Amino acid sequence: MTAKPLNDLLKWRYATKKMNPSKAVSQDKVDAIIEAIRMSPTSSGTQPFELLVVTNPDIRSKIAEAAGGQAQITDGSHLLVFAAWDNYTAERIDNVVDLNVAARGDLPMLRAYYDNLKANYLPREAEENYAHAARQAYIALGVALIAAAEQEVDSTPMEGFDPDAVDAILGLKERGLRSVVLLPLGYRDESGDWLLPMGKVRKSRDTIVTEVN
Amino acid sequence: MTAKPLNDLLKWRYATKKMNPSKAVSQDKVDAIIEAIRMSPTSSGTQPFELLVVTNPDIRSKIAEAAGGQAQITDGSHLLVFAAWDNYTAERIDNVVDLNVAARGDLPMLRAYYDNLKANYLPREAEENYAHAARQAYIALGVALIAAAEQEVDSTPMEGFDPDAVDAILGLKERGLRSVVLLPLGYRDESGDWLLPMGKVRKSRDTIVTEVN
Repeated sequence: MTAKPLNDLLKWRYATKKMNPSKAVSQDKVDAIIEAIRMSPTSSGTQPFELLVVTNPDIRSKIAEAAGGQAQITDGSHLLVFAAWDNYTAERIDNVVDLNVAARGDLPMLRAYYDNLKANYLPREAEENYAHAARQAYIALGVALIAAAEQEVDSTPMEGFDPDAVDAILGLKERGLRSVVLLPLGYRDESGDWLLPMGKVRKSRDTIVTEVN
Repeated sequence: MTAKPLNDLLKWRYATKKMNPSKAVSQDKVDAIIEAIRMSPTSSGTQPFELLVVTNPDIRSKIAEAAGGQAQITDGSHLLVFAAWDNYTAERIDNVVDLNVAARGDLPMLRAYYDNLKANYLPREAEENYAHAARQAYIALGVALIAAAEQEVDSTPMEGFDPDAVDAILGLKERGLRSVVLLPLGYRDESGDWLLPMGKVRKSRDTIVTEVN
């Protein structure tokens, strides 16, 4: 596969409204998308979220019910669930330190950096830390949308779901996780998707950019 | 420039710790990064943030002061400031509707969609709406990090700053905006950056992925 310029990928992708239920995404393409999510940058390298890759039809049906019946969840072949840490804890940050020590050696500056991070994060309310972790998941969401387009796989980012219900279906609460955003993967139904023929709508550069020279 | 696979871009980039103050990013590269941000997907296509592109040295010095003196802000040539809407308002959403109508025609389903969005968003607390808008900016941050790497431009995402101070320096509050994240652009100082020779650290796939089959 020839690599494509980012701008082409951004133009090609769209929030697919109707997926073809008879066309599954191959494992190698799913793996490439997961790898991009795994390599996504996050604040202080904590990677404060996990990824659920759901193919089970019954579980996807239940999740679709908790998401207003959005059919892409079941018409697609894979559902990615980004689940952020419900809080930063000493143990979670220590695991990140251990990983850094294993890769880079036991550097005093590294330990000092994460000690400082703990001093900042641990006294904060869980909700504030969760909000921070959720933002990091959105960096990975942006990367995942590009990764899917690179694989010529369609996807539909979804915020419209009941997070408590999805957490219960997937047993996330017990694992200290909270569902943040859903991303079904599949292939567009070329004839059945009302959004496909419509042009992409974006604000002009002048509308969103201010230059401070 | 030959397009590169996403995975190569994710491996190449890193949060640059020391930039070369004598090497500026060219306008065409800055334009390409801005274009990727402009084309980034956001929830319901509201694009609920603006981008400040700061080159002015005095203003960047002031912002660096509000960011613990992080030198990439002044050693780089451009500073991107992602500033999210402080709230969703009827006017802001109506502007999005107008843009959609201009591009796609005056479709009843389109008006119904955004009427529903207003019914959901407008009664919510400003803080909740800001948090939602800020997450959208993080999608664009993820896209921007890839866009910079594609342009072989270095960048350093920064959350460690005083947002109220930055808002005051840039006059954001009056515009209904709040600074969310900073992204200096420039070129790595090959000999002066302690992080450059260190390997990238990421969790294993098994650590972050659960398959639900």
